Amino acid sequence: MHIDQLPTGTVTSPMGFTAVAVPAGLKKDNQLDLAIVISAQDCACAAMFTRNQVVAAPVIVDRQTLAENNTTIRVVVANAKNANACTGEPGLANARETQRLAAAALGIQPHQVLLLSTGVIGVPLPMDKIGAGIQTAVAALKRGDTTAAEHGGDAAARAIMTTDTRPKHLAVTVALPGGPVTIGGMAKGAGMIHPHMATMLAVLTTDALIAPDVLTALLHTAVNGSFNRISIDGDTSTNDTVLLLANGLSGTAVADAASQAAFGDALQVVCRELAMMIVKDGEGATKFVEIQVTGAPTAADAHAIANTMATSPLVKTAFAGSDPNWGRLLAAAGRAGVPFNQNAADLWVGVAEARELHLVHQGTPTAYQEAAAAAIFAQPAFKVLLTIGTGESTAVVWTCDLSHDYVTINADYRT
Amino acid sequence: MHIDQLPTGTVTSPMGFTAVAVPAGLKKDNQLDLAIVISAQDCACAAMFTRNQVVAAPVIVDRQTLAENNTTIRVVVANAKNANACTGEPGLANARETQRLAAAALGIQPHQVLLLSTGVIGVPLPMDKIGAGIQTAVAALKRGDTTAAEHGGDAAARAIMTTDTRPKHLAVTVALPGGPVTIGGMAKGAGMIHPHMATMLAVLTTDALIAPDVLTALLHTAVNGSFNRISIDGDTSTNDTVLLLANGLSGTAVADAASQAAFGDALQVVCRELAMMIVKDGEGATKFVEIQVTGAPTAADAHAIANTMATSPLVKTAFAGSDPNWGRLLAAAGRAGVPFNQNAADLWVGVAEARELHLVHQGTPTAYQEAAAAAIFAQPAFKVLLTIGTGESTAVVWTCDLSHDYVTINADYRT
Repeated sequence: MHIDQLPTGTVTSPMGFTAVAVPAGLKKDNQLDLAIVISAQDCACAAMFTRNQVVAAPVIVDRQTLAENNTTIRVVVANAKNANACTGEPGLANARETQRLAAAALGIQPHQVLLLSTGVIGVPLPMDKIGAGIQTAVAALKRGDTTAAEHGGDAAARAIMTTDTRPKHLAVTVALPGGPVTIGGMAKGAGMIHPHMATMLAVLTTDALIAPDVLTALLHTAVNGSFNRISIDGDTSTNDTVLLLANGLSGTAVADAASQAAFGDALQVVCRELAMMIVKDGEGATKFVEIQVTGAPTAADAHAIANTMATSPLVKTAFAGSDPNWGRLLAAAGRAGVPFNQNAADLWVGVAEARELHLVHQGTPTAYQEAAAAAIFAQPAFKVLLTIGTGESTAVVWTCDLSHDYVTINADYRT
Repeated sequence: MHIDQLPTGTVTSPMGFTAVAVPAGLKKDNQLDLAIVISAQDCACAAMFTRNQVVAAPVIVDRQTLAENNTTIRVVVANAKNANACTGEPGLANARETQRLAAAALGIQPHQVLLLSTGVIGVPLPMDKIGAGIQTAVAALKRGDTTAAEHGGDAAARAIMTTDTRPKHLAVTVALPGGPVTIGGMAKGAGMIHPHMATMLAVLTTDALIAPDVLTALLHTAVNGSFNRISIDGDTSTNDTVLLLANGLSGTAVADAASQAAFGDALQVVCRELAMMIVKDGEGATKFVEIQVTGAPTAADAHAIANTMATSPLVKTAFAGSDPNWGRLLAAAGRAGVPFNQNAADLWVGVAEARELHLVHQGTPTAYQEAAAAAIFAQPAFKVLLTIGTGESTAVVWTCDLSHDYVTINADYRT
């Protein structure tokens, strides 16, 4: 099995997918803020949503839609700047109206339309702008008009950005036993990013022919090893959604075990690359840090420890300051709720490999050189490894620093 | 029962307690950094420590000491600037040596000395400075010398400060059936502050005559309603300790139920005041916010929700920006791991009382005025109330904002 990344891949790289984006007036300055991704043929669909108890209207509507129909999905409508969350019954009605408007414009059924929203919570979706945006986008699509709308997956990836500083998209091809298939993806992230997703939206597309239940299983595995391993601020949003649409237009079936394994690997590559793009473009992020925990009793224990280290404000501000204040890493590990013997703990840091500089051996600082530690923490990307010596399980989490810019961005997000 | 707060109360307000503080050279610029609190008579002692798995040497030594002796404690030695945490066996040896040095200087036994350390993790305690500081402090105490050392509870409270901007101390008197007793306290906080304590040290003193087991029970209740209800950054430190020493010199026994209840109330007042002082002086804090959750199935559920709201970086940066972005409060509540129906949730904010401005009714925003919300979030102190309507239990947590200054203070703490 061979996975090739396409140079400028997007959600429209797989056969039969198109996308269009317009400035619907949600963002300022005529920026793209509404995107429609369309498949020329019915899609099998798998989805994963936030585990937050407070969920946005589009999440509720998508769950209901997919419970009835996960085999003939055709369209995803995504908007930025307004999350349509905490908007009560009127918000649900607005989401259903958005489905209806898109379906009418495109000549399909409302239950073939899925929704994504991201942005401010608690503000009614401006339906006049949403409705006009959909009309403009579909008209431009039908006429091939490039003045009122921008076409293609790159434009769609830009339209869903909020505090993201750059669009996030890629596509890969993978040679399955039955032939090649393509997987494309786009995502937005930036804040409220934490395992079990975040103010994170991702749309994945593929031209593989694949049954919904297989699609769902492979998506769960891929998301657990990617989007659920990242943290920017520990906050989980009301809107997190990953959608995976498979239209089968390549004619290559993903049915046998070998094809499923290969497709799953390629899907994981796409998800992991998008997840890393999200962390690297985290709000105010200047560092990308991989935190590895080994020697834990269970994988859940390892993940809990890595996660606590990845979300500690003290750890993350030390990262921001390039300060090798490793005591905060151990202190964070110690409050993860997993019992371990601090006198069996070892800590390493490194750039290419985590095991470059040994900081703590069996609970006691080594005679490392402060300058060597400072040099590693000054890098834009580095790795931390904690071994706790009570088992065989491991976990990896990717995180970023907590900088002044994070505070600036979030202290007055709505203005 | 009547509780009176003394105008300038400290740990030396109860009868028979003295304190002395010196600049041992741990801090720069000849600032006080080593304090000794001494009782003229043996004390019953209760203590509570961090639940972190990674604990500092003084925590280990204090636990061992109190397991053998909680009836003849005489002295607490506290130092700032170095936590003596993650320092392995040499760190333990240094802590025991500190006990021995203090005991020798004061003519008591090492197991009558308790230790508190706070500051940087992972750096060996400079025993030359600690030893000389103890000698200077005890000599000054014996001679009444005020040139080499400062005397009194206020000096001790200043010596234990790290990133605190002001000393934290108070004392109250309470009229028990058997007569009046005094309770004094001091604390330091500022960062790594989270329920189950933090880089938080507190010393409580009283001249009440009280048995160690009663003292322990009353301390647990008081700490659970005070220090365990505050959060600055969600980080729990390796050194958190609350010590309560009772020397009995008032002659008033706390034995019967009425006396225990009254003493417990007074103890809670002292702990709660110190806890609020800690939050108000949190690193970079400009806001003091009380978060109330009601209508939860259990008190633990209510606390979990309040706590998640109190620690969310997005909530806390919104506080910093005086931005009434209440959606983040609901989003944080929703990820606390407690199931609830968002359509039964109500959210209020206010200054004197939480129920001044109704923001969300049954999951839907009310027609509140944005200016009214902004005016409340602009106050230096305000209250938030979330009702989730699934039970009868409540919780209160006190927190602060996450400001630029928090990042500045912590990005380069060690230099």
